[in-house]
Amino acid sequence: MNITTPTLLLDKEKALRNISRMVDKTKRSGVRLRPHFKTHQSVQVGEWFREQGVEAITVSSVHMARYFADHGWNDILVAFPANVLEMESINELASRIKLHLIAVNQETVVALAKGLQHPVQLSLKIDAGYHRTGIPASNYAEIDAMLALIQGQDKLQFAGFVVHNGHTYKQTYAAAIRNIHNTSVDQLQLLRERYKAQFPNLQLSVGDTPSCSILESFEGVDEIRPGNFVFYDITQQHIGSCAFEEIAVCMVCPVIAKHPDRGELILYGGSVHFSKDVLVQKDGNAVFGRVVELTDKGWSEPLEGFEVVSLSQEHGVVRVSAEQFDKYNIGDLMGVLPVHSCLTADAMRGYLTTEGEPIDHLSGVR
Amino acid sequence: MNITTPTLLLDKEKALRNISRMVDKTKRSGVRLRPHFKTHQSVQVGEWFREQGVEAITVSSVHMARYFADHGWNDILVAFPANVLEMESINELASRIKLHLIAVNQETVVALAKGLQHPVQLSLKIDAGYHRTGIPASNYAEIDAMLALIQGQDKLQFAGFVVHNGHTYKQTYAAAIRNIHNTSVDQLQLLRERYKAQFPNLQLSVGDTPSCSILESFEGVDEIRPGNFVFYDITQQHIGSCAFEEIAVCMVCPVIAKHPDRGELILYGGSVHFSKDVLVQKDGNAVFGRVVELTDKGWSEPLEGFEVVSLSQEHGVVRVSAEQFDKYNIGDLMGVLPVHSCLTADAMRGYLTTEGEPIDHLSGVR
Repeated sequence: MNITTPTLLLDKEKALRNISRMVDKTKRSGVRLRPHFKTHQSVQVGEWFREQGVEAITVSSVHMARYFADHGWNDILVAFPANVLEMESINELASRIKLHLIAVNQETVVALAKGLQHPVQLSLKIDAGYHRTGIPASNYAEIDAMLALIQGQDKLQFAGFVVHNGHTYKQTYAAAIRNIHNTSVDQLQLLRERYKAQFPNLQLSVGDTPSCSILESFEGVDEIRPGNFVFYDITQQHIGSCAFEEIAVCMVCPVIAKHPDRGELILYGGSVHFSKDVLVQKDGNAVFGRVVELTDKGWSEPLEGFEVVSLSQEHGVVRVSAEQFDKYNIGDLMGVLPVHSCLTADAMRGYLTTEGEPIDHLSGVR
Repeated sequence: MNITTPTLLLDKEKALRNISRMVDKTKRSGVRLRPHFKTHQSVQVGEWFREQGVEAITVSSVHMARYFADHGWNDILVAFPANVLEMESINELASRIKLHLIAVNQETVVALAKGLQHPVQLSLKIDAGYHRTGIPASNYAEIDAMLALIQGQDKLQFAGFVVHNGHTYKQTYAAAIRNIHNTSVDQLQLLRERYKAQFPNLQLSVGDTPSCSILESFEGVDEIRPGNFVFYDITQQHIGSCAFEEIAVCMVCPVIAKHPDRGELILYGGSVHFSKDVLVQKDGNAVFGRVVELTDKGWSEPLEGFEVVSLSQEHGVVRVSAEQFDKYNIGDLMGVLPVHSCLTADAMRGYLTTEGEPIDHLSGVR
């Protein structure tokens, strides 16, 4: 491989194993896996899921839904409060696939009812404790009012309740993550009890990567929607969702300067490549990636004695112990496991597999 | 304008005024303006500079140099430690434009000397206190050694010393920024004294946006290379480089959900749109943007009572005072001034002028 500029390497074997582990787990649990494709945003990676039997997917924008619909996916949930300004694109999609939308407010339901020309599945987004967006799980008055609005509309088919427990990302103990998951399932069960007479087929859907990685079964829900697990990253390793060897993407960056006076290497690789998410480690240090050694077939576990301490637009600064400083020279390539693989992939706009095959990303094919 | 998804608005009149103010200042000071084009990365915005007499530019990658060389720019400094792995592209560029590179280490000079097929200008990057990259200004032994290596090579023409005082970004007092600038100019003057007999035409180049915005004259240097000033952003306003009304770019984001229970609005606009740079304000609060009111011809000053408190991949969360909460409804568009316009422009991959004209960005034309 002739890599000369920052490049996102993808280990296909690791990604396939991550996918099959989750597929197997959902089969054993009897729940539907509707993986979130916002992590990879790639038609080719999508095919790896399809080959393992996945038929229904999650995306985070209408634009992303259109991209995957154009490549043969026809059961797509846009897991983002419906953007009623995009009614034209929504109608176009709803005319050709089974499109699922979500709503948080009555205004959205009214606007959809007014603008839709084709039927869509509509779920209500429930806030089970993350507090980013969603109707508080105990706000029955609001849920009742929204369901009443939906029921009168022939273009809106109520599908169920959707939760995203993003607060699992703040945890590093499996028990805490299980508690968050179980608390949200309990809340969803109360909703099912309340509405099942009226909607006997209502579906309960959850799905953050930490819960879906740590739990072994998903009793009480019908569907899970994890996304990040296909690649993982050092944030997920920190949380406990994965081991380092399960991380399937690695940035490759040229070393462009060395500062022996302060033990720092400068990488060609900055916030326009990695994005700028940061991981505060258990020792309190903030890092922007973990350095690994590149090998013939991929990369090693993280190396001790290297810290990616800052990123500016195109530069990365790596602090290196005295013992390790001479390991890298100018013109060498350094491997860095990303803090947040979804954002790094979006910034990089494409992948190169460890076998040398270029792989598309939606943001590179606009 | 029919905006339905996150869009980066560009007020051309403000950008033209920002450019002409800097052009006038450099004319009065008798220094060369070599603006950094990494902020806008746009052929059209580049033309606005050219129309005001700018002929020499700065970029941050060989890829960016090629883009502008392909559009008629033929005096380009890549203000980034030369990436010797890109020798083929460097040679191709050096064959057709006046290409300037920079070096920090002897290894780089040796690799360039070995690989270059066409002459390039080479400057040494000096660290005058920022400590990201560069040779410490007082490390004469290293500078002597590098100049000795350069002198023997017919493809390397020593151009001078280049400094980037990125530590001005940590300041909010004009006097502190002037001190940083003056300290670096003093250090550069010592270098000029030391090497002027040998290199009578050596050039001294500085150029962060805070210094270049706050200072009125640039005695002692030959060239300035600010970039961000074409657009500015709320970080620059916080530093004191600009007023709010000089910020020339504004994100426009649909409101997609409302949470009256906790006074929050959810925007379609997250870290894949804004990037994830954050500004810690004087009150200690971290913000990811400042909300403005969109008007027929652009936008207002920032509104009181709104705080962009978090960004996830596609969501932005805006905390709103009780008095302002009803000002926005689902489906409305909200204006947000970015924290860091360079990264937002790179993430957005294109602009729309307030007159409705689409403008390219390199990252959208790959």
